[in-house]
Amino acid sequence: MTKIKVGILGCTGMVGQAFMWLLAHHKQFDISFLGASSLRNDKYYVDEVNWIFPFPMPESVKNKKCEAINFAKIKDRGVRIIFSALPADQARKIEPELREHNFYVFSNAGALRYEEDVPILIPEVNLDDINLIEKQGFPGKGFVITNANCSTTGLTVALSPLKKFGIREVFVSTYQSVSGAGYPGISFLDISGNAIPYIKNEEHKMIIETKKILGLEADIYPTCVRIPTLWGHLETVWVTLEDRVEKEDITGAWSTCKSASPRLASMPDNPIIYREDEDFPQPKMSFFGTPPGMTVFIGQLKKINNRIGFTLLVNNIIKGAAGGSIQNAEAFVQAYGGELKT
Amino acid sequence: MTKIKVGILGCTGMVGQAFMWLLAHHKQFDISFLGASSLRNDKYYVDEVNWIFPFPMPESVKNKKCEAINFAKIKDRGVRIIFSALPADQARKIEPELREHNFYVFSNAGALRYEEDVPILIPEVNLDDINLIEKQGFPGKGFVITNANCSTTGLTVALSPLKKFGIREVFVSTYQSVSGAGYPGISFLDISGNAIPYIKNEEHKMIIETKKILGLEADIYPTCVRIPTLWGHLETVWVTLEDRVEKEDITGAWSTCKSASPRLASMPDNPIIYREDEDFPQPKMSFFGTPPGMTVFIGQLKKINNRIGFTLLVNNIIKGAAGGSIQNAEAFVQAYGGELKT
Amino acid sequence: MTKIKVGILGCTGMVGQAFMWLLAHHKQFDISFLGASSLRNDKYYVDEVNWIFPFPMPESVKNKKCEAINFAKIKDRGVRIIFSALPADQARKIEPELREHNFYVFSNAGALRYEEDVPILIPEVNLDDINLIEKQGFPGKGFVITNANCSTTGLTVALSPLKKFGIREVFVSTYQSVSGAGYPGISFLDISGNAIPYIKNEEHKMIIETKKILGLEADIYPTCVRIPTLWGHLETVWVTLEDRVEKEDITGAWSTCKSASPRLASMPDNPIIYREDEDFPQPKMSFFGTPPGMTVFIGQLKKINNRIGFTLLVNNIIKGAAGGSIQNAEAFVQAYGGELKT
Amino acid sequence: MTKIKVGILGCTGMVGQAFMWLLAHHKQFDISFLGASSLRNDKYYVDEVNWIFPFPMPESVKNKKCEAINFAKIKDRGVRIIFSALPADQARKIEPELREHNFYVFSNAGALRYEEDVPILIPEVNLDDINLIEKQGFPGKGFVITNANCSTTGLTVALSPLKKFGIREVFVSTYQSVSGAGYPGISFLDISGNAIPYIKNEEHKMIIETKKILGLEADIYPTCVRIPTLWGHLETVWVTLEDRVEKEDITGAWSTCKSASPRLASMPDNPIIYREDEDFPQPKMSFFGTPPGMTVFIGQLKKINNRIGFTLLVNNIIKGAAGGSIQNAEAFVQAYGGELKT
Repeated sequence: MTKIKVGILGCTGMVGQAFMWLLAHHKQFDISFLGASSLRNDKYYVDEVNWIFPFPMPESVKNKKCEAINFAKIKDRGVRIIFSALPADQARKIEPELREHNFYVFSNAGALRYEEDVPILIPEVNLDDINLIEKQGFPGKGFVITNANCSTTGLTVALSPLKKFGIREVFVSTYQSVSGAGYPGISFLDISGNAIPYIKNEEHKMIIETKKILGLEADIYPTCVRIPTLWGHLETVWVTLEDRVEKEDITGAWSTCKSASPRLASMPDNPIIYREDEDFPQPKMSFFGTPPGMTVFIGQLKKINNRIGFTLLVNNIIKGAAGGSIQNAEAFVQAYGGELKT
Repeated sequence: MTKIKVGILGCTGMVGQAFMWLLAHHKQFDISFLGASSLRNDKYYVDEVNWIFPFPMPESVKNKKCEAINFAKIKDRGVRIIFSALPADQARKIEPELREHNFYVFSNAGALRYEEDVPILIPEVNLDDINLIEKQGFPGKGFVITNANCSTTGLTVALSPLKKFGIREVFVSTYQSVSGAGYPGISFLDISGNAIPYIKNEEHKMIIETKKILGLEADIYPTCVRIPTLWGHLETVWVTLEDRVEKEDITGAWSTCKSASPRLASMPDNPIIYREDEDFPQPKMSFFGTPPGMTVFIGQLKKINNRIGFTLLVNNIIKGAAGGSIQNAEAFVQAYGGELKT
Repeated sequence: MTKIKVGILGCTGMVGQAFMWLLAHHKQFDISFLGASSLRNDKYYVDEVNWIFPFPMPESVKNKKCEAINFAKIKDRGVRIIFSALPADQARKIEPELREHNFYVFSNAGALRYEEDVPILIPEVNLDDINLIEKQGFPGKGFVITNANCSTTGLTVALSPLKKFGIREVFVSTYQSVSGAGYPGISFLDISGNAIPYIKNEEHKMIIETKKILGLEADIYPTCVRIPTLWGHLETVWVTLEDRVEKEDITGAWSTCKSASPRLASMPDNPIIYREDEDFPQPKMSFFGTPPGMTVFIGQLKKINNRIGFTLLVNNIIKGAAGGSIQNAEAFVQAYGGELKT
Repeated sequence: MTKIKVGILGCTGMVGQAFMWLLAHHKQFDISFLGASSLRNDKYYVDEVNWIFPFPMPESVKNKKCEAINFAKIKDRGVRIIFSALPADQARKIEPELREHNFYVFSNAGALRYEEDVPILIPEVNLDDINLIEKQGFPGKGFVITNANCSTTGLTVALSPLKKFGIREVFVSTYQSVSGAGYPGISFLDISGNAIPYIKNEEHKMIIETKKILGLEADIYPTCVRIPTLWGHLETVWVTLEDRVEKEDITGAWSTCKSASPRLASMPDNPIIYREDEDFPQPKMSFFGTPPGMTVFIGQLKKINNRIGFTLLVNNIIKGAAGGSIQNAEAFVQAYGGELKT
């Protein structure tokens, strides 16, 4: 099968590196454009990036060249699918232009997330929202599909199967890793042996995005805290449900979580893994699962009165960022594949 | 003023070290018995302890000698006040015996906390509960006064001033430091760059103790997590109140928090310090305040619907353990001082 | 090709886990006996092990069963190659017995390292020393081949190609990760944000083993320090050489480092990788290379007077422990393969 | 006694904070000018600084105001002694101007360290070099006295008493804490669980400065490494001596280390503390000693052939930076006090 050519904008940043790592050997996609700042134009990727992951840079990307962003050039190369790892301010300007130029943009940036006809897509949660791209003018025009904020991603994957029980209130405290703040991000002097109980805008994002993605009017009570871990966000959750349920109802609901059919290339067989081990889950498992970093792990299930408590782990850089965007592109290809043949 | 002679049982452990550090220059108390395992009998403290604090061992305790626990010997030396930093299993056996032998035991162990006539005392919260020692037979006999579990201590100090608004529900997630697990406690391999969402019995303790100390029937929804910090427990809290309140009502209530009158020697002028700084409080402030480690720091005050959210920091080893016990002994001396003159 | 059946003794410890991980999909070897304490007899591996690596336990080993060590049972199963990850005291007793019972023991323990006819084998350094097994009585009897102490492994791999220039003195300071102390090993309270300038016997081992492996009479001046990293030992080295050399002579020598011919299954094409990047190498690269963790990375090459300085990284658990033993077994099979057909 | 008015330039940075902390209650000096960038002019110190130390900001400095650097203003206030914590580039420009304007500059910056008539002063090492200020034109003009690079400070304090044995070669490897890189300095993503074997210019500085301070022609072989600690630099050292010495000769030499007579206000009674404890010294002791952070701790003394090995700890921010400068100012006042009376 011929692979579909894709571009990555912001390829040297933290999330950009995740896109490079995930796409280096992707079955359907081929990295054909490495967009970076014009200062890096025509320079080898391996020389421009401060590779931050605990596993090596794929050999196949080392000698690809970074390029300044140029719409005509991208189009000439036959690329229509663009993964955007741009900083918020650049995304706000460039992503709408890309859409105007008929690109299909899968963005990790928050810039357009709150526009009514831009879906915040998580395939195993709200796959149907992909239709919103038609409101943006597709197939006549391009579109932007965003993924959720990293903390929201984990939360909504865990909550989505519980919607049928009637979610009324959600109390969530996050234990967010430092990689979520990008690179260089947080100084060792600030966070080593410490925790910082404030992440700008994060609580607000969790409230807005959780409601939009799940399409519900529940009350969300979030508290976001940075802790000295490198990868993975842990979240402790208490949910108030309308129905009287038992723990088995909850685990049963989680076990039915699947994505599109047939399964997307980057989607685990079980997007949620629940375990009863007494100390499960932990951030050190952030890259566990198949494919690595795409599973939401849940444990610590409890019931007090009509409330359900649990603790989840989501890989903030993979499932909660680059990986989620790639799954979204796979979902798009599955739903509208014909469009890419032109 | 002649100082009152006191003994410390379990003086080489983590909490024992905190007792030694806090009492080395105490205005009222004089360390007159250093109880340790019989293997350490007659050995110098400085040689027996793996000093774990980030500030040096006080010179005055280095050449004191450890002694095997011997009731007659303690009594002969004129010691009646005993601080217990014994492990739970030893405490369960020895503390009731100490009480029988007319000692006044201020215990950090959980062994007797849930006995009806044993107070879990936090002077700025439930000072009146000190009267329970009379039910134990005091002044005719000895007694045991316990302090709360470290996480519960921080929570109840913060909640106590809000009781007047009617506390119905408490959602609390903890970010507990490794020192809370004692020494050697947790392996670096398990917790470095990681978080462990399980602390044995901790959630149960928070439920039982919070209700007992505050004397209320509210529902407590706790989740306890260990994070890779050395000192201080952070806790994120949402409270459901019966009254409609504004944020000013909350901060006003906190500002009135005081302890016994006159102020106890180890009690800060303001046992609660609330600040609006955007990233306040943080575990690196665990030893801030005067005296160090005795203040509960609160920030991140929020209001959504009729619920109040905030984040607190408590020093788990000082206020939440050895320091709390010492305040309790000071409260006892203030209330019943005459008894010690015999 | 039929795989050769092997046993692992001490399969649940830190190094035992590394053996399990490395052998789960090995081309030549098949895990046929999981030796553990008798308390774990007949229990599933997945339930008995506190899996410590930052990548998941291989599926294929999860449901293998641990077994108490029983020589007859091992023999009946057709296993002759034994990988020993036993603690020193057990190794000292059991390994000689295994040899007596005609087993071929590849040991990570230090127990027999200093016996004259027991090789400390590192294939790319002293492959010829494998002949020492004949002095132990092979093929008539079994044998023990040990690998070196982890710090020594990295050092001797780096020094071996420089022997031709005449090594007179070696000054080495280590930056050793916590995994080198086993599990539970070092308390977070002791090492977090700290360094410990003492590792029992380590400097002595480096002196004795370096001389034995390299067969030289140079003076070794080691200083061993534990730092708060999880994986990988960094070592800073200054060497006094007899010859006048240029930096190119050194890098040239390193580039010729190869192992047995044909290449062993677990040996990288280049056992040494030297790079000029200004901040190379770093412990976070401990699992880099192919196969992961088997390469010694070197950087920071300097020359002052007739002395050469450099900094190396070795994965203490893979190349410096379990991985080194497996390479040794591969070297044995390559050299004496016929013996295993019986 | 009336205190001498002093100014601090760069008061909000890492070293500037150390000056503020150390001078807040200094016996001889009074903080009378808080120089900062003009953006901070007239703003309260407490609001402008990201306080980084693990102990609280002194109350007395919180409400002092930062001021843009203005020579006339400083002079009008009666300030002649200036502590400079300026970044290198600013120091290079401003410090010579300050000297021209008759200020007495005690600088932590490296800008002028290598000028022939500018002393790199460490009172217990080379107090006589203070006379160099006369070559700069004092008392007719101002002067600059610098302190050494932090790593060099610890090394030269330890080596100075050994000069009498004839120092021929020094091999030193450093384990440097992150605070040495200033604020924000090093990203948590780069150094957490890692070590970085490269610190720009550091090895060069150690060579040049050690020779200048000790006035010797020995060969220095340094290797500088950053490790994930917050405070304190550990250094492992091997020294080649001309004399045949025993370990007792070395410890005897260290025990005689004293500074100016009478003792300077910020100088410990014993500037070097040597201990035989098996795991001494450790970075967690960085603020130990009296005054805190001013002592060089040494342990791990070894002798192989004619070489002496040891491991030292120096507080890089206190003794190795702000504290060293303050001791230098104290030494100046003791030697030339009359000059300040005008």
